[in-house]
Parts: sequence; C-alpha cells; structure tokens
Amino acid sequence: MKIGILGTGDVGKALGNGFLSRGHEVKMGSREAKSEKAAAWVKSAGAKASAGTFADAAAFGEVVVLSTLWEGTENALKLAGAENLAGKILVDTTNPLDFSKGMPPRLAVGNTNSGGEEVQRWAPKAKVVKAFNIVGNAHMVDPKFPGGPPTMFIAGNDADAKKSVTEILTAFGWETIDAGGIEASRLLEPLCILWVDYGVKSGTWNHAFKLLRK
Amino acid sequence: MKIGILGTGDVGKALGNGFLSRGHEVKMGSREAKSEKAAAWVKSAGAKASAGTFADAAAFGEVVVLSTLWEGTENALKLAGAENLAGKILVDTTNPLDFSKGMPPRLAVGNTNSGGEEVQRWAPKAKVVKAFNIVGNAHMVDPKFPGGPPTMFIAGNDADAKKSVTEILTAFGWETIDAGGIEASRLLEPLCILWVDYGVKSGTWNHAFKLLRK
Repeated sequence: MKIGILGTGDVGKALGNGFLSRGHEVKMGSREAKSEKAAAWVKSAGAKASAGTFADAAAFGEVVVLSTLWEGTENALKLAGAENLAGKILVDTTNPLDFSKGMPPRLAVGNTNSGGEEVQRWAPKAKVVKAFNIVGNAHMVDPKFPGGPPTMFIAGNDADAKKSVTEILTAFGWETIDAGGIEASRLLEPLCILWVDYGVKSGTWNHAFKLLRK
Repeated sequence: MKIGILGTGDVGKALGNGFLSRGHEVKMGSREAKSEKAAAWVKSAGAKASAGTFADAAAFGEVVVLSTLWEGTENALKLAGAENLAGKILVDTTNPLDFSKGMPPRLAVGNTNSGGEEVQRWAPKAKVVKAFNIVGNAHMVDPKFPGGPPTMFIAGNDADAKKSVTEILTAFGWETIDAGGIEASRLLEPLCILWVDYGVKSGTWNHAFKLLRK
C-alpha cells in the first residue's frame, strides 16, 4: 500500500517506520519540498521511503497520515490539497494541544468544563473527589476482570482527601491513579461516555479501563 | 467510618453495600425523609445501614458519596446543606449526562467540539479516522506491555475506512475499539491529556490504555 505522511516530527517518523516495517511504501511530506528532517529520515529508512511536499505526500498516499503540530494542521491540510485527499482515508493522529500555560498541555478545543467542577462550585466547602464515574455500578466494588485490577482515575483539589479515597478504592479492589485537580474531571467524564458507548454497541456491560504500565 | 450516601439509585446502593461489606456504617439520604427505596435497602442491608434526608446523610457522614442523577445534583447538594458538608470528603460519582437525544447519552457540560471534527471540516472530502492519538510515538508500533495488547480507540464517519485502519492497527500490534463517529474524538482527545499528565507526574512514558473485558 502507498502511505503519505503529513509531518516530519516524531509521530510521522514512528508511523512511517511502522508502515515500512510492514512492507508498505511511504512518502513523507513537509511544508518545504526540501526538508532536512524528511531527507535525513529517507536516508535512514531505505528504498521504499521518499519525501516531498504536503501535496506530494497526499497525492502519493492511498492512506494519508496526519501527524502535524496542532497549530500547523489546518494549513498543512490546505497545502496538501482537498483534491489530493478526496475519498482517501486520513488517519488523524493529532491532538488540539494548548501549551500556552506550559506542561502538561490542555485541550485547545471543546473541553472547557466538567460536572466535577460544577459540583465543587455547588459544595464549595467540601473536599470534592471525582471517583467511580468511569465504570458501571455492578463493578464499583470488587471489580473482577481478566488482566485486572482495573484502574480508577480520580480528581480533586485536596491531596489528603484523594489519599483517603485512594484507600477506599484499594479496599474495594481498585488500583488508583490521581489525575490531578478537580478540573481533571474534564478528562474523566468523557471516559464514562466511552464506557457507556461500548456497552450500548457491544450489548455487554462487563468492561473497565486499565492503564498498562511497564 | 461513617458514610453518608446522597441518592437511592443503583450507584448509591452498590457503594453503600460496598462500604457495609468493609465494616463501615452507612446512612442513605434522599429527598423525602421516608423514601421507600431507601427503606427497602436498609431492610436488606442490616444493622449498620440507616436512612434519612439528604441533610441527615450529609451530617452523618465523615465521608459523603454523591450519587444522584445529574439533573438532581445541584438541588441535592442544596438540601444536603453546605455546613453539613464543610471540610468533608465528597466523593463525586456523578456524570453530567444529557439523555435528550436518547441512548447513549452525551456530556451536558464542557465537551462540545474536538480536533477530529475540525480536521474533518478542514478536509471535507477525506475519510478522517482518529487514531494513534492516545499514546506516545514510542509505542505506536509494536506496543509491548505486561497485560497487553493495549487498546486503540478510533473514531470516524466512514465504516470501511475504520475497517482499514483497524487492519493497520492489528498489523501494528493493537486491539481496536470503534468509539463511533468523528465526534467521538471528543472522548479520545481527553485520553491524550490523561496520558501526558501521567507521564509528567510519574516521569515515565511507558504506559497505554486497555479496556479490560470479560
């Protein structure tokens, strides 16, 4: 298969190498026709690798991978050309990251509030800890899964309160990861929908998230 | 420990039973002092279980669990009383669910757009499939984790395109779950931030999500 890659960063190189390792041809595209980064990658990547402009890569690919920095994404797609992408699979690996407040980044698009933050506003003197919201009630206590225990992510502004809730979760059979302040509920509530959507689609309700670590 | 539960639904009962099973005392609170659901639960749950109003449960608990339907949450906290919650841990298990468009629900708060949807708007003729955005580039191809393979969630509007991307992901060593249309990017992009936040906090970058299933 012919793969076009839009972007010369680490993601583009990693996926480019991945496609090459599976026998595909890969053209890496960048803003300039003669990108040093793309040329260096082609040199190391071998005969099935090539480079060109965004438009070249988009025209080349049967599947096109979008792996640009967020702030360059709209322009990269413009340069790639709507007709070069028409009808093709465009694998969007990007995230709309806002680094304006430093590390870690926040989402620049559509992730602006959460129920957890509302609850903290409604109960301002309480030490709110978001927990148990990413799994169905049948699995909240003694969750038993192959490959478990699953992971409960929690969020809250008070470290001692999170420590106490972690002890409760441990007693209930969970491993716990502290996702940050109560605004991290913005990250956990979408997991509820992902959990529910999978249940609706599969007709099963026996699933839970885990963060694999090594 | 004394636990107050705000709400008499399945979550309140499941967690109430969980706390009782670990030897704690539990008071279940509801809008009416004489809730039939709470009374039935107390009858089945034994001597360490009791029931009362939201205010009774909040006053009773050293730890208070919030397990109301979203539309009743603000009022439940008002009825519980700010002073009864002051300084206490409030475990927020709620999700701000909007069922107005049927099942599955959407988030009613703060989850209104995504990079994936923007990309689909910028490349309207392409078959955009969100993928590879929830893990670092070092693990995008041949991800090796204890308990793996990890799960890649994907989103997009074209079923055939998602099938092709699933084949790519399988070849790269992933198990794949189709999270829905491109608007499901709203659920996947927060996972990127959760992934990055854990990396920043732990100083490690060798982790990936998995949906445990049985």
